Amino acid sequence: MIIVMKPDASQNNIQRVIEVLEKKQLKAHLSTGKQLTIIGVVGDKSILSESNLEAMDGVDKLVPITESYKLSNRKFKPEPSVIKVKGFTIGGNSFSVVAGPCSVESREQILETARFLKSLGVSFLRGGTFKPRTSPYAFQGLGQQGLEYLKEAADETGMAIVTEVTSLKTLEIAVDYVDVFQIGARNMHSFELLKEVGKAGKPVVLKRGLSATIDEWLNAAEYIMREGNNQVILCERGIRTFETATRNTLDISAIPVIRSKSHLPVLIDPSHATGVRDYVTPLCKAALAVGSDGIMVEVHPTPSKALSDGAQSLNFEEFQNMLSELKPLADLCGKVMSK
Amino acid sequence: MIIVMKPDASQNNIQRVIEVLEKKQLKAHLSTGKQLTIIGVVGDKSILSESNLEAMDGVDKLVPITESYKLSNRKFKPEPSVIKVKGFTIGGNSFSVVAGPCSVESREQILETARFLKSLGVSFLRGGTFKPRTSPYAFQGLGQQGLEYLKEAADETGMAIVTEVTSLKTLEIAVDYVDVFQIGARNMHSFELLKEVGKAGKPVVLKRGLSATIDEWLNAAEYIMREGNNQVILCERGIRTFETATRNTLDISAIPVIRSKSHLPVLIDPSHATGVRDYVTPLCKAALAVGSDGIMVEVHPTPSKALSDGAQSLNFEEFQNMLSELKPLADLCGKVMSK
Amino acid sequence: MIIVMKPDASQNNIQRVIEVLEKKQLKAHLSTGKQLTIIGVVGDKSILSESNLEAMDGVDKLVPITESYKLSNRKFKPEPSVIKVKGFTIGGNSFSVVAGPCSVESREQILETARFLKSLGVSFLRGGTFKPRTSPYAFQGLGQQGLEYLKEAADETGMAIVTEVTSLKTLEIAVDYVDVFQIGARNMHSFELLKEVGKAGKPVVLKRGLSATIDEWLNAAEYIMREGNNQVILCERGIRTFETATRNTLDISAIPVIRSKSHLPVLIDPSHATGVRDYVTPLCKAALAVGSDGIMVEVHPTPSKALSDGAQSLNFEEFQNMLSELKPLADLCGKVMSK
Amino acid sequence: MIIVMKPDASQNNIQRVIEVLEKKQLKAHLSTGKQLTIIGVVGDKSILSESNLEAMDGVDKLVPITESYKLSNRKFKPEPSVIKVKGFTIGGNSFSVVAGPCSVESREQILETARFLKSLGVSFLRGGTFKPRTSPYAFQGLGQQGLEYLKEAADETGMAIVTEVTSLKTLEIAVDYVDVFQIGARNMHSFELLKEVGKAGKPVVLKRGLSATIDEWLNAAEYIMREGNNQVILCERGIRTFETATRNTLDISAIPVIRSKSHLPVLIDPSHATGVRDYVTPLCKAALAVGSDGIMVEVHPTPSKALSDGAQSLNFEEFQNMLSELKPLADLCGKVMSK
Repeated sequence: MIIVMKPDASQNNIQRVIEVLEKKQLKAHLSTGKQLTIIGVVGDKSILSESNLEAMDGVDKLVPITESYKLSNRKFKPEPSVIKVKGFTIGGNSFSVVAGPCSVESREQILETARFLKSLGVSFLRGGTFKPRTSPYAFQGLGQQGLEYLKEAADETGMAIVTEVTSLKTLEIAVDYVDVFQIGARNMHSFELLKEVGKAGKPVVLKRGLSATIDEWLNAAEYIMREGNNQVILCERGIRTFETATRNTLDISAIPVIRSKSHLPVLIDPSHATGVRDYVTPLCKAALAVGSDGIMVEVHPTPSKALSDGAQSLNFEEFQNMLSELKPLADLCGKVMSK
Repeated sequence: MIIVMKPDASQNNIQRVIEVLEKKQLKAHLSTGKQLTIIGVVGDKSILSESNLEAMDGVDKLVPITESYKLSNRKFKPEPSVIKVKGFTIGGNSFSVVAGPCSVESREQILETARFLKSLGVSFLRGGTFKPRTSPYAFQGLGQQGLEYLKEAADETGMAIVTEVTSLKTLEIAVDYVDVFQIGARNMHSFELLKEVGKAGKPVVLKRGLSATIDEWLNAAEYIMREGNNQVILCERGIRTFETATRNTLDISAIPVIRSKSHLPVLIDPSHATGVRDYVTPLCKAALAVGSDGIMVEVHPTPSKALSDGAQSLNFEEFQNMLSELKPLADLCGKVMSK
Repeated sequence: MIIVMKPDASQNNIQRVIEVLEKKQLKAHLSTGKQLTIIGVVGDKSILSESNLEAMDGVDKLVPITESYKLSNRKFKPEPSVIKVKGFTIGGNSFSVVAGPCSVESREQILETARFLKSLGVSFLRGGTFKPRTSPYAFQGLGQQGLEYLKEAADETGMAIVTEVTSLKTLEIAVDYVDVFQIGARNMHSFELLKEVGKAGKPVVLKRGLSATIDEWLNAAEYIMREGNNQVILCERGIRTFETATRNTLDISAIPVIRSKSHLPVLIDPSHATGVRDYVTPLCKAALAVGSDGIMVEVHPTPSKALSDGAQSLNFEEFQNMLSELKPLADLCGKVMSK
Repeated sequence: MIIVMKPDASQNNIQRVIEVLEKKQLKAHLSTGKQLTIIGVVGDKSILSESNLEAMDGVDKLVPITESYKLSNRKFKPEPSVIKVKGFTIGGNSFSVVAGPCSVESREQILETARFLKSLGVSFLRGGTFKPRTSPYAFQGLGQQGLEYLKEAADETGMAIVTEVTSLKTLEIAVDYVDVFQIGARNMHSFELLKEVGKAGKPVVLKRGLSATIDEWLNAAEYIMREGNNQVILCERGIRTFETATRNTLDISAIPVIRSKSHLPVLIDPSHATGVRDYVTPLCKAALAVGSDGIMVEVHPTPSKALSDGAQSLNFEEFQNMLSELKPLADLCGKVMSK
């Protein structure tokens, strides 16, 4: 960390800052320029978290140099993490496909979808039963009943279930049903939920917040991992920008950035990123080419009858075509699809 | 709502959409242009929430014309809402000052602050005890112990307590202590928490999400109000942009926008919006001039020793000077400060 | 276009709007709902450009339904445009590689680079000689001297030159040297420059503005095309967001969006989008997979000695490796690289 | 400036960086931590502009500590600048009102407006004659004819003319007519235009770019000032965000930020910032309260007949009422309005 002093900071101000650092056993390196003085801090700065250097007299600003996350940081674990779920793999040379409807709507719908996906070799079944919706007047999901249906579909097909939990209460209900928890974009900052999902000990897909920086995202992963759960799978699902042609802006550069900063696997969700069915296939191909560990895609037997997000869901035929396009690309990239 | 059909939509596609509308007792008005057809939908479109028009063949997009929120909508309640807490008023011709430290740190700190604020006529005491922090290694608040201290300060001074709840669990703990719940920016989208805080029946300060649109913000208010709780106070605290000179960008235009769209009172929090102490006073003056219903400001006996957000906290002298500057402005604007 | 009337608009207000429309030979379709009236406008609304419906009494807002650009619009020319330069092709089944240093720095530098690129089969040589730099104290380019060097390199190798013009004056100087003009992100809104470059009659690479919407970008293309020049090549180079891990955020979804809205070819520039050398290769692969028509990449003999943007430039070896990785991908995608 | 080395940088890498610095007579201060080494650079770093430290082996990133702009920097000229135009003042204790139509549309329109404004004591008349419009099919301004009308209005009333120039060509035409040049948001990055307007020697209103940071804005001012022209007036006109309720988001915090970083006066343009007439008056009041040096507001005799931006223009009565509301506020804030 660098402490930048104000141009008019007194020797006394500087001395005080150094005293605070030294009391914490940190070393201070002074660089005194014509305009101002900067102080380099050497040592474990996490012990500074309860100090408040930024508010001390004469201090202009703090410039962090190293990241505050540790367990998710590639510096401390250079080899990529590989996560196993029900015998299926996420990370390494796998390219994982997580697919299913936005919402579980009925027993028939989810069973039909699961059977179809299984027939194509897809291992991860997604489907929401607790739906966070902007308007309270929109469809809110089937709740526990939906989990029962998901479970039945998974039991029959052997697929692994990925589903979203939105609060401590829904986490408690879902824990008996799901194989992989999903934390949605709207809850990436719900730190207590992150801690609890960390304690639950099952793999977690952690979506990036609506406008979270990559740094904040990895700090959110840290909340989960600190509870002893290292099975975190990141998922880029678009960030909020001024562009309105797509629902969000897929930040594809986040994949190489995450690769350089973290060892965690990272998926791409083009359905939520764009909100437009026609853009899903080209973005899935880009996801593979850029080096992501997989995709999360919405599939629905009859998108025009979906209770939520039908406009971004592929129908069965479109999904099958998409997989066919991905297969040779995966071979070329040395990735094994799905299982 | 307007349904815009694709240029190549068939007569059959259009007919199907009209059938769906008519089955729901809605009227469809066709406008057929050279390039494309648009369909105006007349009637209560909330009954369409489980349809999925956007995914029907031939449909290009839906353009909403009216807002999806109702209880918070000024169209349905033109007169501004006024909220009473412990005899103090928010809304109407009041300009309310909510002040206190970012975090409750000790019994002495909060008592000293409360006494000082009370001596200046401030009625609302803020202080966090459950702190949502980006990094899990940062100070996380005193929890229930902090609530005890807040309560003691409120009992002694007669002030009303405003404090943040971050989950169903902390809501349950806090309900016996607080006068006004605060939902922080990071939880504006935590819809289950919104519902629960709606049921708790106490006034709620609802901060705008980090990158929430005003429309989403009013929909979040709707989640609370639908549970029978109309005592919602909005609070603009800055949105995320590319600018880095301030922590966030205070969207001051949100105040007149909210005025035209909603009857709910709205505060401004310049401390979180900017993250810089020196910018707080000018922005408080702007908050008054633009017509907001009050401010939420961080005050700390010794900002340089604060455990969180010291850089944006005013010390006692700075806060007192700020109030002195606001007073004549409030008089001029016909606003009564604080109580 | 839809005209949304205010809830309290009078019959008189509505009548007045209809009169304005009918005077222009446009048809008005009324949809009268419980809350408000909307008016669908049918006909060529470009003739409304000098009216000011939005400011008429009782009008709430105008909702555009069709795009204002025409010549660049796919609706009016469904087949993709293919552009020929010196016998080289951009668009169609080509995947074009435009490469070279950020700035032309010396005769040796550009000759060495051109020879190397030519040896790999690259056809388009880029290099800036008029550099728009944020700070006036940064290197501003070699000007006309740089153009001489570029010309020499092109004459020797047979490559086509792509270089940026930044004003009417530099356009006039450059016109005798370049094969393809580049309009940089900072000038996408310089409409007079767009018109002049349209008149110059040479192909134009039009970069997306720092924070331009896709709609604005296509309108900028329209400024060029209206002067009779259809040879416009779009180039996505990242948009401005809150994320700081990359210089900008590459909006990869823009490629399928452009495909659906326009017939113009579109490149991706990952060097400027990220500002980080290590992210260039994965994003070039994504550019190919997503279906773009090519890439624009910075290459420098010795990036650590570049006078501008060295941190994002590939050295020769890195560039060669990148091309080797792209080749099989291009084959798979049915694209012919470079020529 | 701080140079942050990569964790795996070798002693050799570090040595090389130090050599480059020392060759330039700069001092290097090393701070060697467990994870990485940082190098503080002391001295005039502008001489580094042609080096490329960021691309050297082992270098992770450069962290600028001091600003790159100098002439506009408050550190080098602490007292606020006051600019005189035709005997009128901008800056100091003045609160300047710049008003007029978006576009000059006819001789009658601008004369009528000027006479009305003059009667209220307004000194600065704005009106565009070269209009940068997103679509080439929209009204583009009257050009030189409009300047003639403006001049006539100014000659009769004694007001000072503020008008936009959009290119070297329109600058040349306008120079004989205008008192204050305006550089619009879309041209803030047109550096050659900035230089030329710097040479022209007349005061310049420099609007903030659509998505420019404050740092970039002050660097743009630097381009003008380096040509010997210190008469730069900044104007905040809203930045681009995801919010759609207003056309842009007025960044009101920019006022205190500019105050702390620069000595230049700064205006607020609420008409362009919001695009909505009803929001103009509250934001003008906020502009005064926050400490800006004035406002730029659109006024039109009949907004509903304006050829551009009618929806955001005040009519004469609305403008007069707005001034009446501002007057007592200005008195309270110790500001003298308009002249």
